[in-house]
Amino acid sequence: MSFSDPDRRFMQRALALAERARGHTSPNPIVGAVVVSGGRIVGEGFHPRAGEPHAEVFALRQAGEAARGATVYVTLEPCNHHGRTPPCSLALLEAGVSRVVYAAADPGETSGGGAERLRRAGVRVEAGLLEEEARVQNRAFFHAAAFGRPFVLWKAALTLDGRVAARGRGGEAVSNTLSHRVAHGYRQACAAVAVGAGTVRADDPALTVRAPDFRAFAAMVEPPPLRDPLKVVFDSQAKTPPSARLFEPGPRGEPARVLVFVGEDADADRVQALEAAGAEVVSLPAGEGGLSVEAALAELYRRGVDSLLLEGGPRLAGSFVRAGRVDRAAFFVAPRILGEGRGLIEGFSFGSMQRAMRFLPERSEVLEGDLWLEGRLEVG
Amino acid sequence: MSFSDPDRRFMQRALALAERARGHTSPNPIVGAVVVSGGRIVGEGFHPRAGEPHAEVFALRQAGEAARGATVYVTLEPCNHHGRTPPCSLALLEAGVSRVVYAAADPGETSGGGAERLRRAGVRVEAGLLEEEARVQNRAFFHAAAFGRPFVLWKAALTLDGRVAARGRGGEAVSNTLSHRVAHGYRQACAAVAVGAGTVRADDPALTVRAPDFRAFAAMVEPPPLRDPLKVVFDSQAKTPPSARLFEPGPRGEPARVLVFVGEDADADRVQALEAAGAEVVSLPAGEGGLSVEAALAELYRRGVDSLLLEGGPRLAGSFVRAGRVDRAAFFVAPRILGEGRGLIEGFSFGSMQRAMRFLPERSEVLEGDLWLEGRLEVG
Repeated sequence: MSFSDPDRRFMQRALALAERARGHTSPNPIVGAVVVSGGRIVGEGFHPRAGEPHAEVFALRQAGEAARGATVYVTLEPCNHHGRTPPCSLALLEAGVSRVVYAAADPGETSGGGAERLRRAGVRVEAGLLEEEARVQNRAFFHAAAFGRPFVLWKAALTLDGRVAARGRGGEAVSNTLSHRVAHGYRQACAAVAVGAGTVRADDPALTVRAPDFRAFAAMVEPPPLRDPLKVVFDSQAKTPPSARLFEPGPRGEPARVLVFVGEDADADRVQALEAAGAEVVSLPAGEGGLSVEAALAELYRRGVDSLLLEGGPRLAGSFVRAGRVDRAAFFVAPRILGEGRGLIEGFSFGSMQRAMRFLPERSEVLEGDLWLEGRLEVG
Repeated sequence: MSFSDPDRRFMQRALALAERARGHTSPNPIVGAVVVSGGRIVGEGFHPRAGEPHAEVFALRQAGEAARGATVYVTLEPCNHHGRTPPCSLALLEAGVSRVVYAAADPGETSGGGAERLRRAGVRVEAGLLEEEARVQNRAFFHAAAFGRPFVLWKAALTLDGRVAARGRGGEAVSNTLSHRVAHGYRQACAAVAVGAGTVRADDPALTVRAPDFRAFAAMVEPPPLRDPLKVVFDSQAKTPPSARLFEPGPRGEPARVLVFVGEDADADRVQALEAAGAEVVSLPAGEGGLSVEAALAELYRRGVDSLLLEGGPRLAGSFVRAGRVDRAAFFVAPRILGEGRGLIEGFSFGSMQRAMRFLPERSEVLEGDLWLEGRLEVG
């Protein structure tokens, strides 16, 4: 398949439109679409949230009669199933478009097959334009579809000597304001954010999205409406204080959505107090070094969470790393040296430099003095 | 003072010549000189080691009669005192040069004043060409002259999570081969290298210069002859094994020069065993967290050591950091995450992120995947 420069430009636009809903569509992917007739964009759309129409439908609506004989660029293969909305393949056929270009194939078993249906109806269908960009844009969605568990992004702010906090000093900022804002961009992008009960007690974080910076999301031209993620606390003993800030409504007045994972032997009164504070409490079997990470991810996946931002602290990070369930990491390294303090990971070691986990940075940028690294992790 | 492009080129050449003796001149600086007549270089020289003639003398010798009426470019103000060699100011006058351009003023109380003497004799003297480069080239020399103690460069290889070793696993490489070679370049550049007795027992390092890479030294065009530094062990209990590799002759057959600092109450038999192994043993008063760093630096300065490479381990680093006696740092950050292990600094903490020491990188480069950072440290 060979694509022209205008093809690429229109698909780029579709990718940028998709970003308008970043953080709102889980468990669906973000998707954008543009309708082009006579070399001009005549319709644009994006999928705003699960349950609402898909990107193609909005774009076709805007195009109206101009869609007849037009080309549609869409970042994901048009769906072919009657879910909460009718199939996009049908909508495209009814609108009379003559060509459909999409970036990435739909990995869904029920939703897939749209391309085939369009082809059989005589539409020219071309796939794979900016596919890599589209897959990166929906990394969590494709990951969750492939593995049946949420994509886990580990975010940590640390000093050059690997310290995330001084002992006994919770809530102290490690990284600078810009790093914080980029970190809040990650919160917006993830369906849920996870912390350990120790971090709640030490730092009392709100875990809301405030003044995010979206430079981690290349295709974004206009920021999405903000919303707070589901807040997940790993708390085997149910020791999270019911007065914790994370129970409070968010900066936009949204009621906090809090899920507390506790151990099977957690104290019933404390569980009740958490529920009274507004949390949903789910008990999980124990795993190595805490609650079972595997069980937690399975539970989150069942609830439609496709992406989890792992924010700390060191023990929870250790559990996830030990379980091999960190899919990507974003580190903000502050140019400071603390000396003794809390490590990035506690309660677990790979035991030798040879066996230590490799970090493969795909992005490195200096943010007002902090070093921001994002990349994959590889064990063994 | 305004200088021409050829002026700059000739001084650049003098700086490069100086590097030919990197590691050999302590407590003297490295110095290079070129003699230019009719726009051409007619003589070149550098100061090869303490006790031998200065750079100007070698350059004038090579120029011979061509020095008459010539311009001499020298990286340091010509000296004006009878030390182990006659004053360079006199040599320049006798050669009949008409112009002398130097980069940095001589900070020495006895050696200074050369420029003034030349001026009084009618030579055109100009100062400050590439002064910053010249001062950087002899950072240790200027520092030692200003403060009366060696310049301390802290070198460490660490993982992204700030680990310098797994527990109980000495001698494991943290950084890659190229990082090691650059680290050996630092060893060549420093008059002495320091380790703690724990590091000797855990890693058994040779502390010699093997296959160094000199990219840390910008003006270097040809590597200097290699030589091993003075090896300094901080060992309050005199527990260094007399069989340690650092007592062995170096890769070029040089007998090892080893200085062991011990506590005032160190066991006399063990001290004797160290002396029998070839060490010079000096007892020092105790300081916070070990031997007195201040007393150690004073002793080294007395011995003509102008620069000390602090190589570890975590406790010795902690003593130096606590004492505020780290002047610069070079870190090699391997893209690995170990989890629990030995920290960059042990036995000391700044206690809060706010008070943590700031690292001000002046150089950052990726060396085959490792991140190499070099810069200043700032407390408070």
